[in-house]
Amino acid sequence: MNKLDWVDKRNLSMLADFYEFTMANGYLENKVSHKIAYFDMFFRNIPDDGGFAIMAGVEQLIEYLKNLRFSDEDIEYFRSKNIFNEKFLDYLRNFNFTCDVWAVPEGTPIFPGEPIVIVRGPVIQAQLVETMILLTVNHQSLIATKSNRIVRAAQGRDVVEFGSRRAHSYEAAILGARAAYIGGCVGTANTIVDRDFDIPALGTMAHSWVQMFPTELDAFKAYARVYPDNCVLLVDTYNTLREGIPNAIKTFNEEVLPRGYRPKAIRIDSGDIAYLSKEARKMLDDAGFSDVGIMASSGLDEYIIRELIEQEAAIDSFGVGERLITARSEPIFGGVYKLTAIEDNGEIVPKIKISENVAKITTPGFKQVYRLFDRDTNKSIADVITLHHETIDDNKPYEIFHPLYTWKRKRVTNFYAKKLLVPIFNKGQQVYESPNIHDIKKYCEEQIDTLWQEVKRFEKPHEYIVDLSQDLWNIKDKLLKENQ
Amino acid sequence: MNKLDWVDKRNLSMLADFYEFTMANGYLENKVSHKIAYFDMFFRNIPDDGGFAIMAGVEQLIEYLKNLRFSDEDIEYFRSKNIFNEKFLDYLRNFNFTCDVWAVPEGTPIFPGEPIVIVRGPVIQAQLVETMILLTVNHQSLIATKSNRIVRAAQGRDVVEFGSRRAHSYEAAILGARAAYIGGCVGTANTIVDRDFDIPALGTMAHSWVQMFPTELDAFKAYARVYPDNCVLLVDTYNTLREGIPNAIKTFNEEVLPRGYRPKAIRIDSGDIAYLSKEARKMLDDAGFSDVGIMASSGLDEYIIRELIEQEAAIDSFGVGERLITARSEPIFGGVYKLTAIEDNGEIVPKIKISENVAKITTPGFKQVYRLFDRDTNKSIADVITLHHETIDDNKPYEIFHPLYTWKRKRVTNFYAKKLLVPIFNKGQQVYESPNIHDIKKYCEEQIDTLWQEVKRFEKPHEYIVDLSQDLWNIKDKLLKENQ
Repeated sequence: MNKLDWVDKRNLSMLADFYEFTMANGYLENKVSHKIAYFDMFFRNIPDDGGFAIMAGVEQLIEYLKNLRFSDEDIEYFRSKNIFNEKFLDYLRNFNFTCDVWAVPEGTPIFPGEPIVIVRGPVIQAQLVETMILLTVNHQSLIATKSNRIVRAAQGRDVVEFGSRRAHSYEAAILGARAAYIGGCVGTANTIVDRDFDIPALGTMAHSWVQMFPTELDAFKAYARVYPDNCVLLVDTYNTLREGIPNAIKTFNEEVLPRGYRPKAIRIDSGDIAYLSKEARKMLDDAGFSDVGIMASSGLDEYIIRELIEQEAAIDSFGVGERLITARSEPIFGGVYKLTAIEDNGEIVPKIKISENVAKITTPGFKQVYRLFDRDTNKSIADVITLHHETIDDNKPYEIFHPLYTWKRKRVTNFYAKKLLVPIFNKGQQVYESPNIHDIKKYCEEQIDTLWQEVKRFEKPHEYIVDLSQDLWNIKDKLLKENQ
Repeated sequence: MNKLDWVDKRNLSMLADFYEFTMANGYLENKVSHKIAYFDMFFRNIPDDGGFAIMAGVEQLIEYLKNLRFSDEDIEYFRSKNIFNEKFLDYLRNFNFTCDVWAVPEGTPIFPGEPIVIVRGPVIQAQLVETMILLTVNHQSLIATKSNRIVRAAQGRDVVEFGSRRAHSYEAAILGARAAYIGGCVGTANTIVDRDFDIPALGTMAHSWVQMFPTELDAFKAYARVYPDNCVLLVDTYNTLREGIPNAIKTFNEEVLPRGYRPKAIRIDSGDIAYLSKEARKMLDDAGFSDVGIMASSGLDEYIIRELIEQEAAIDSFGVGERLITARSEPIFGGVYKLTAIEDNGEIVPKIKISENVAKITTPGFKQVYRLFDRDTNKSIADVITLHHETIDDNKPYEIFHPLYTWKRKRVTNFYAKKLLVPIFNKGQQVYESPNIHDIKKYCEEQIDTLWQEVKRFEKPHEYIVDLSQDLWNIKDKLLKENQ
């Protein structure tokens, strides 16, 4: 049960935009392919106008980079295009990944403008991996971020990922469930995710179960006899209050209790869930089942869950499907991959991309990100993007300043600084082992605890501070002026 | 180059909601697992309030159903859960798919409420395949439908799918590009899709290419020397009008023409595309390059493309990325899978699911869908959902009526009727060969041509008629009354 078996078997090296290959071929033809280039992956906007996003996908990124290779069939495919040089095809045939890669560990809160992945290496290689790096990290960060919003809205109630059937194909279901777990869901409905990622698969019954038996009561009893120790009944196939719940109570009394178990829960999947759950609660309590939970599903997301809780819906756990697995309210995580520097005779030359859209101007140079934490409260104070070799000495005060309104300055004291980017490949060799998924989930929760409530607000959250170091700011300012 | 190699290698039989297995085990324990059940896949709402959706994903659905099997590791996984009977695990070990399956061919316009996939077989099997059927068809139908909206908005201009990096993981990119092609895109940026599905991969250069050379002009010339016969230059890395386009023109004159080629196009990826494209057009025309195209990309969708065209933007082709591959404006295609009948002593007993949401009430029975076409215009008049054995005799008039406002009746004459659902599996044996992707795309275009303009409108389209036959309506009405 090698959990990444399915990634290994299916080599995704060809999952790259075609221009990665035409550029690679062009770099080789122009004798610049060996030049050392630096690329940053970063994103510009937090989905749903949230206060932070969550990094995810590093484990799959590592698997991809470890397995980069091109088969004879791939070479033949390129040859058939009649635009690639044989020398380039040879290069692909003998492809050997030699880049350095840094990434922010999964589960870390991340903010716009910060590099979250950095690749350094021959431009021919560093360019080729663009599509898969973006695809992998964009998708899982999107879902982890969304999942965490929903989990926070549920205020301690369990949230289970239920969305496979509406996912954007197979890995959107599988890796989406993985990311949802990192973001705080307690489990998934998807069996393969349990088998391959050790994330608990949970499930009850579909309406079809109820329809397969002569009556709803027959169906409930049949289920309870097979699963008396884990009896969750779906009560809305016909009429929730008039039939579903009374039949569930009857089943609990006649089939579950006599077998020495307590029933687990009922599930409501349609109708007005606030009203139905409150009525159901009363009926269950009156029947002596105040320990039996009520699970709600059907079109839920963080907005609806917040309202349901405001309306005192009597719901103990939520099954969240399509709006989680597609991140419906904002299904795009807009990470980009930009050249930030090249090496010339061993010297790092920062590069910038200017744009008529100010928001699309890149920050040049080879970087690191430091997060400053308050020593007393352990709360995150600010992130500072620095040049890679800079260190922030947390034994003395450190002045941060707004990169645009540079007169806005703040002297930070009594803090400790942590580097966010860690090496994952060194000269093409993997130097980082992904933590297990449960540890990632736990780490994510801990790291989110370091954020102030104001950053976690759903509406107009406080904008977390992400500044540039003075040295990095100077380089950017100089390049901007030169390119005017 | 077996294009479905990657599906075969990775068995997706375990990609199923856990409850499919607990129910299957429960059916076996309750001795109803052999009962013949009928399930319909259908959807309730057309994304983006459009007038129709497009069926897609059948080829992948067939591959999945053909390869259904459970490995020793899967059995071991289930055994470790301590809730499954050994008899059930034996059943899975020797799993043999014996269902009948019907589906609407890919590329067909489809409408809410119609069965688009029907599965008939032992309930233990017909239930198990729910998640993958929904997942596969929901995703590709979503993207094919979105792609077609964008392609129609472009009014004959080429649309290329550019979205891999923002897709919801790997198959969302790969199968999304496939579905986008069915919906009308002329190609994709994704190499693996070209290799595996014979869909043309197209591409130019990234901003990083331009940044890798000392100047933009150097970068353009370097590119043109390698690809003089297919020279498309990205002109917005620094300043589009002041530098990018003049440098492109200089490159065309100095590197492309002398080699005996005409340049292909320029690409604009930022800034105000309407304005920039019009200025670019003038500059290119004045320089003698009126045959050189202008490609636009960056955050496009059908809404923006319509406006750009209204504003007379001088754009010849569109690269559409994240908003296509995620179907951003509505990323959910809400297909569901519902039990509609069971067999009892060889007799079909229709089943209904009642709901307090009227829209969630199902239509019972084993069905077929007929589409009625006008003999003179070949336009689609209406769809009629019938019982499976019913035939519509198109040699005589046929009366259709609204299933809710039953007094609204219409006598259709001079029509021919076509069955939409075709058999794809017969007793577990595949009986349908997917057409090649180019034929599916062509078929899709032809079928959309049978729809009236009113149905294709973007805003408040005409609601296409989908009625029930009298016999089917009678069955539904009877079950509704019985369940009151």
